[in-house]
Amino acid sequence: MTSSAPIALSLGDPAGIGPEIIVKAWRALKDSGPAFVVVGDRATLVVATGRDGTPVEAVATPAEGATAFARALPVIDIPLGAPAVPGVASPAAAGRIIAWIETAARLAMSGEAAAVVTGPIAKAPLYEAGFAFPGHTEFLGQLVPRKGSSGPVMMLVAGDLRCALATIHEPLAKVPILLTAESIAGAGRTTAAALASDFGVPRPRLAVAGLNPHAGEAGAIGDEEDRIIAPAVKALRASGVEASGPHPADSLFHEKARAAYDAVLCMYHDQALIPVKMLDFWGGVNVTLGVAIVRTSPDHGVAFDIAGKGVARPDSLVAALRLARDIAERRGQA
Amino acid sequence: MTSSAPIALSLGDPAGIGPEIIVKAWRALKDSGPAFVVVGDRATLVVATGRDGTPVEAVATPAEGATAFARALPVIDIPLGAPAVPGVASPAAAGRIIAWIETAARLAMSGEAAAVVTGPIAKAPLYEAGFAFPGHTEFLGQLVPRKGSSGPVMMLVAGDLRCALATIHEPLAKVPILLTAESIAGAGRTTAAALASDFGVPRPRLAVAGLNPHAGEAGAIGDEEDRIIAPAVKALRASGVEASGPHPADSLFHEKARAAYDAVLCMYHDQALIPVKMLDFWGGVNVTLGVAIVRTSPDHGVAFDIAGKGVARPDSLVAALRLARDIAERRGQA
Repeated sequence: MTSSAPIALSLGDPAGIGPEIIVKAWRALKDSGPAFVVVGDRATLVVATGRDGTPVEAVATPAEGATAFARALPVIDIPLGAPAVPGVASPAAAGRIIAWIETAARLAMSGEAAAVVTGPIAKAPLYEAGFAFPGHTEFLGQLVPRKGSSGPVMMLVAGDLRCALATIHEPLAKVPILLTAESIAGAGRTTAAALASDFGVPRPRLAVAGLNPHAGEAGAIGDEEDRIIAPAVKALRASGVEASGPHPADSLFHEKARAAYDAVLCMYHDQALIPVKMLDFWGGVNVTLGVAIVRTSPDHGVAFDIAGKGVARPDSLVAALRLARDIAERRGQA
Repeated sequence: MTSSAPIALSLGDPAGIGPEIIVKAWRALKDSGPAFVVVGDRATLVVATGRDGTPVEAVATPAEGATAFARALPVIDIPLGAPAVPGVASPAAAGRIIAWIETAARLAMSGEAAAVVTGPIAKAPLYEAGFAFPGHTEFLGQLVPRKGSSGPVMMLVAGDLRCALATIHEPLAKVPILLTAESIAGAGRTTAAALASDFGVPRPRLAVAGLNPHAGEAGAIGDEEDRIIAPAVKALRASGVEASGPHPADSLFHEKARAAYDAVLCMYHDQALIPVKMLDFWGGVNVTLGVAIVRTSPDHGVAFDIAGKGVARPDSLVAALRLARDIAERRGQA
């Protein structure tokens, strides 16, 4: 690994807005960096350039991509069998979409890439093709686990707010069943460790959210706080993490409240994503903690409804690339 | 009922911040109005004035209170047996707390009061005393039901955001069990009717939130959207309500999204309260729809931890009083 190792950016679903925002992100970053190399289908990228004249250059390695980056959008070409149609999900592309992620992860594991950023994927066509993971986070948790980690943790970053999730893409009805003191404490430890190693917060303060309205109001509205979350906070404190809570989730995200912690550990998806997307709808970033590589992604989906129309915004992808570079540098990997 | 009918304001828990913010609200509103008369314990209010010189005047009727309002904080005195200790909940006060709410509601039913605003109550001491309702909303739904309404609906208002709730103070684990297409459609109809009658929105657009991450992502993450919420939206549209959804909740509350609807129908407490309290932590207002009277309240609790310290902010109570007056005027009751 050298200081010039670029970021490996998996193309994501070729029928979504991924290719378009990648072209736009290259135009935004080609002079300033961070440099990245796409892992995906070259032809899809060429189509996505439309008439804007962006040169797309096939490269064999990330190092070649880093050299090419200032003059062209570099791509390690692992071609599709058939061209993608914007807006139309195709299970036929699923094998390639997965291979692009795997290749990007492998390049990061070997050090040829400093980090992985993933373009958005749609779950339904991947499920149809037999993909067994709810999303990138869980897939990478299995593909590139980190020794000693209790598993991958999804964190969202928007403005001054960082939210880690104790459960991710689960039906709301399953959340109370899936939460355990162990799983919450494990996610909390991974989050605290990442705040120190990846975000430059040496003594992180972790606010743990409650699950129920008013954090259960002393047991009057649900018992998970007393039974599961408070013991998790206690376990975190016993292991040296400056954890507090469970806090009522509705009083945890306004400006004054945010000054009191470095990250929130949220119990379920929308408890984190509602505040994140209110604070920065266009520029939020998803970070995977507790795996062996640096990985970020935009916090939005494939947006099939606007794919191919030229209106998608690259803000979140650009922010994801920049944050991946920041984290890689903090870890001394770049 | 005359145009001078004041608002009846129940004191709420005398050990909470209610008495203090009521004194502060009177100072803020004594010249401009809206006029209100407290229904509660006079002695508690006198203690709450501290050294600020606010005169407290016992009155026999709301009409007397309206006359007194410009010179003194008027109170219909229904005294406690023993003085309250700020910050210390007392089940002994429960009977009076409930009587104050009932009296205020009765005054609104008779037209002597234009509306009811309720001071915050704590649930635990009321439960201990045998109170069988999760909160004011459900209690008033039974006490002053509106003919033809499917039941009371809680709405939160903050800035340009209005959120109505399909379930209120329920453990999160119960929410998926409690939601039915009928209950959601009923709450939606009540909300749409109130937007027209109480908020001056003749053709209200109602955005219905999903329950699961990504609104279930076409069934991949939970089936309540397909099974329950989409049929509710269909039923609402069939009955003439301009309803849309189910929408992914995390993309529903940022500034641009808010321009596309007049209210959101949320599936559970924190789905509404997180965005409301992010938009306006200090000034959010709770409104009860679908009952026979106009009722609002601050959107915060008793805050026992700061009771009696003089630091509580009256913003939310002041906003609740103003909104109650606005709604009463729109209904032609004032």
